[in-house]
Amino acid sequence: MVETPEIRNGPVGQPLAEIASGGHDLAKAFAHAREAGSAELRKLTFAQRGELLASLAKALHGAREELISLAVANGGNTRSDAKFDVDGGSATLSYYADLASKLGSTTLLGDGEPVQVGRTARMSGQHVWTTRRGVAVHINAFNFPGWGLCEKLACAIVAGMPVIAKPATATALVAHRMMQLFAPLVPAGTVQMLVGPAGDLLDQLRAGDVVAFTGGSDTARMLRTHKNIVEHGVRLNLEADSLNAAIMGPDVELASETGGLFVADVARDMIQKTGQKCTAIRRVLVPEARFDDACDAFKERLGAVVIGDPAREDVRMGPVATAQQKRDVSAGIARLASATTEVFGGTGEIAGAGYFIGPVLRTTKTPMECEAMNDHEVFGPVATIAPYDGDADFAARLVARGHGCLVSSAYSDDRDWVTRFVGAAAPWAGRLYLGSAKMAAQSPGPGTALPSLLHGGPGRAGGGEELGGVRGMQLYMQRTALEGDASVLKALLG
Amino acid sequence: MVETPEIRNGPVGQPLAEIASGGHDLAKAFAHAREAGSAELRKLTFAQRGELLASLAKALHGAREELISLAVANGGNTRSDAKFDVDGGSATLSYYADLASKLGSTTLLGDGEPVQVGRTARMSGQHVWTTRRGVAVHINAFNFPGWGLCEKLACAIVAGMPVIAKPATATALVAHRMMQLFAPLVPAGTVQMLVGPAGDLLDQLRAGDVVAFTGGSDTARMLRTHKNIVEHGVRLNLEADSLNAAIMGPDVELASETGGLFVADVARDMIQKTGQKCTAIRRVLVPEARFDDACDAFKERLGAVVIGDPAREDVRMGPVATAQQKRDVSAGIARLASATTEVFGGTGEIAGAGYFIGPVLRTTKTPMECEAMNDHEVFGPVATIAPYDGDADFAARLVARGHGCLVSSAYSDDRDWVTRFVGAAAPWAGRLYLGSAKMAAQSPGPGTALPSLLHGGPGRAGGGEELGGVRGMQLYMQRTALEGDASVLKALLG
Repeated sequence: MVETPEIRNGPVGQPLAEIASGGHDLAKAFAHAREAGSAELRKLTFAQRGELLASLAKALHGAREELISLAVANGGNTRSDAKFDVDGGSATLSYYADLASKLGSTTLLGDGEPVQVGRTARMSGQHVWTTRRGVAVHINAFNFPGWGLCEKLACAIVAGMPVIAKPATATALVAHRMMQLFAPLVPAGTVQMLVGPAGDLLDQLRAGDVVAFTGGSDTARMLRTHKNIVEHGVRLNLEADSLNAAIMGPDVELASETGGLFVADVARDMIQKTGQKCTAIRRVLVPEARFDDACDAFKERLGAVVIGDPAREDVRMGPVATAQQKRDVSAGIARLASATTEVFGGTGEIAGAGYFIGPVLRTTKTPMECEAMNDHEVFGPVATIAPYDGDADFAARLVARGHGCLVSSAYSDDRDWVTRFVGAAAPWAGRLYLGSAKMAAQSPGPGTALPSLLHGGPGRAGGGEELGGVRGMQLYMQRTALEGDASVLKALLG
Repeated sequence: MVETPEIRNGPVGQPLAEIASGGHDLAKAFAHAREAGSAELRKLTFAQRGELLASLAKALHGAREELISLAVANGGNTRSDAKFDVDGGSATLSYYADLASKLGSTTLLGDGEPVQVGRTARMSGQHVWTTRRGVAVHINAFNFPGWGLCEKLACAIVAGMPVIAKPATATALVAHRMMQLFAPLVPAGTVQMLVGPAGDLLDQLRAGDVVAFTGGSDTARMLRTHKNIVEHGVRLNLEADSLNAAIMGPDVELASETGGLFVADVARDMIQKTGQKCTAIRRVLVPEARFDDACDAFKERLGAVVIGDPAREDVRMGPVATAQQKRDVSAGIARLASATTEVFGGTGEIAGAGYFIGPVLRTTKTPMECEAMNDHEVFGPVATIAPYDGDADFAARLVARGHGCLVSSAYSDDRDWVTRFVGAAAPWAGRLYLGSAKMAAQSPGPGTALPSLLHGGPGRAGGGEELGGVRGMQLYMQRTALEGDASVLKALLG
C-alpha cells in the first residue's frame, strides 16, 4: 500500500483510508472480464441477470445503515443526502431486476417489426440488439458513489456485459463497500473495481468495449480524444457539465400549489448534496411581476438552512466533498459574483475548518447575455435567478443558451404555454420536467434521475444516454439488421 | 475560379471540370442554414417534408440519363454501376417520402409508451424525439456521389434539419448536378453544397449541429478529435473502413440455389463499382471439402469479366475512380500478396493508360491469423478466400476478427447453424445477410444498403447508424424524457 492519495472525511478532512497506487495488473483484470465475465453473463438469460441484480439490491438493503454512515463520514453527506445516494442505488438495481424479469428467458432484444425488403414478404428484414463482446468500463463521479455505481452497473449487467468500475477516489468508500457486498454474489469476472489512480486502464480498451463516464468536461475531453478510444472505435457515453434551468410560467402565483412546488424544487436543488448534483437547477427565470416575491421566498428558505457537521440530526446541509471542490466552487462563485448581484448568501464564505460553503443565490437583469450564469457550471449550492417577461419562447431560448443540459423544468398550468415551451426547449435537454398543480403532491422534483426515464443530455452535457428502461441497456448492445428469409428471421427471434 | 484541383475523367484522367478553391463564405452558409433553413423546415410537418423529398426524387428521375452519363464519365462507372448509384439515390428519397407521409401532420416523434413515475398513474413520463436546432454537415465518399448525397439528405430533411453537403471532390459532378436540380425545389437555406476543399467548414460547428461522414479511417480519426467537435459536443456519425465477410455454410452444395447465390454475390461484390463499395465482401470462408470447386467457380466468373472503357456496352468493370485510388489499391494488393497466394488475377496489374485494376482473388490457409486479410481494407476489386472446417463459431470469430463491419453474410439452409452464427456474429456487424434457397430468387445481395435497414457498423466501421427507416432520422433529433402530469403529456403528443 502506497500512502497517496488518501480518502479524507468531508467535514474536517482527516484521513479515513489509504489507496494503493499502482501495482494493479489491469491487463489481467480485462482478460478476466473478457474470458470469464463475458461468458458467464452471456450464459444467463435476461431474467436470470435480473435475479442477479435483485440479489445485489438485497445485499445493499441489508447493509443500508452502514452504507449511510460511510456516506456521511466520507462524502460530507447529511443522512438525507446519503439515503438519496444509497437508496437511489438499490432502487435502480431493483428497477432493472424487474425489467429483466419481464424481458424473460432470452438473450436477444427485437427492435421494431419485420419489414419487407424484397418483392414479396418472404424477403424480410428484422432489427435486433445483441450483447457486445467486450468490457464495460464505468468511470463514476464523486457526488454519487453509490447511485452512480449501481445505475451504470445495472444496465450493463442486464445487457450482458462485464463491468470494471472506477469510483472517484475521494469518495470511494461507499462504492468500495458495495463492491465487497457484491463480490460473493456475482459470477467470476463479471464485476470488478479499481479504486485509485486510473493507471493504464484506458490502454486496455479495444473494439467491442464501452466506456461510460460521468464527471467534468476536462476528463470528458480527454476521453473523447484518447488514442485507444479513437483508434478502436470504442463506444463512449459521456455525462458532463450541465447548466439546468427552472422556469416559472407567467400564469403561476407563488402561493399556488404550482408556485409552492417551484420554490421547493429550486431550494431543494440548491441544498441537497450541497448542490453537488449534475441535475441541480443552476439558472432560474421568474416573471417580472413576481420576481421580488420569489426572491423573498428563497431568502426565507435558504436563511433557515442549518449548515454544519452532517452527522448532526438538525443539520440540513453539509460541506462540499473535498478541498479541491471547495476551491473550485469558491472560484466559480467569485466569477459569478463579478457579473451578478446578491440575492442571498454573498459569496458563500463560512469561517472555520472543513469544506463548508453557504448557499448562494445571485441575480442578473440580462440573463441571456450573462456568460457567468450560462457557460460555467458551479458545482455547489449556487444558482442565479433572473426576471423575464413570461414569454415561453424566451424561456426555451434560455434553456438553449446552456448549449445542452441534462434536465430543465417549467412550472405552469397553462397548457398552451407549456406546449410552446416544450417544442422549443426539448432539443436542448435530455429531460424536461413539467411542474403543475395536478402532480405537485407526488413529484420527485427535477433533480431526481429515475431509472425509467433517460438520463443524459445533448451538447455540453456530453450527448450521452443512460437509464430510461431498455434504452439504458442499448449502450451495451449492438443493433443489427438481419436480412433474409422471413421464416428464418422469425425463428431466430424465438 | 482557381484551377486546383480538377475533376478528372475516370478511364483516362483528362480534366472534366475545375473547382474553385477558397473564396466561399462558409460562415454565411451556416448562418443561412441556421436562420432561414432550420425555420423553413420546422414549419413543415413530416408529411410536408415527405412531399418535398418526393419532388426531389421526381427531379432525379427526370434527369436520370444525364446523371448516369455523368457518373460514367466522372466516376469510371459502367452504366450498370451508374444506375446503382443514381437509382439508389432516388429510391432512398422516395422511401423517405413515403415514410414521412405515414408519420403524418406532426413534427414530433413519440418514443415508446408512457411510464408511471409517481405513486399513481397521474405522475407520468413519455419519451419524445424533436428536431435538433442546428446544421447537418454531410461529408460524402467518392464511390457513391449520388446515393450518398441522397441517403444522408433524406434522413436529415425528414427529421427537419438543414443540410450542408460536401461531396468528395474527385467524383463531385453527379452530386453537383443533383444539387442544381434540387435548388429550385427546396426552401431557402435548407440544402447547400460545398464542392472542393473543406476550408473552415468544421470551424463553423457548434452545439446542436450534426456531422455525418462516410469515408476512410484517417479522416474519421481527424473528425473524432477535431477541437470544435470535441468542445461543443457536436453529434458525429461515422462510417469508415469495413472488412465484410461472406461465409458458405457446411450444408451448402455449390450447385444448389444457395451455393449459386453465394458465388454470384461474392463475384458481384468484387466487380460492381470496381469493388469500391463500403459494403463489398473482402473476406470469404468456404468449407474445406468444397474449397477447390468454389475457387474454380470464381476463376471462371472473374475470367469472363470484360474490363475497359465503362462507356462501352460490353464492359462489365471500369477503372477505379482516381489515380490516388489506383495507387492505394495497388499498394493494398501488394501487402495482401506478400501474405497470401494467388487464386485469380495475380496483383491486378493492367498495362496501358487509365486507372484500371483487374479483379484479384487471394487465399490463405490461416485466415484467423492473416493480418493483411483482416486488418487492411483494400478498396478495389479484391478479396481473400480461405477454407474452414464449417464450424459456425469459427465463422463468427472470423467476422469478429475484422473488429467491426458494416455487413457480413452467411449462406446456409441449416437453421441451427444459422442461429449459432447469428448469435455470435451479430455484435460485430451492422447488418447480417442470411442467404438461403428460399430468398435466392429475390435477394438484393449483401452489398446493397437498403433504406429500411440500418447502414453502419461497430468498431472499425465507425460505430454509426444511418437509414433503417425512422432510426436514420434519429441522428438529427434529440430524445427527451418528458416528466409530468399524464394528461399534459398526452396532450403534448397530440
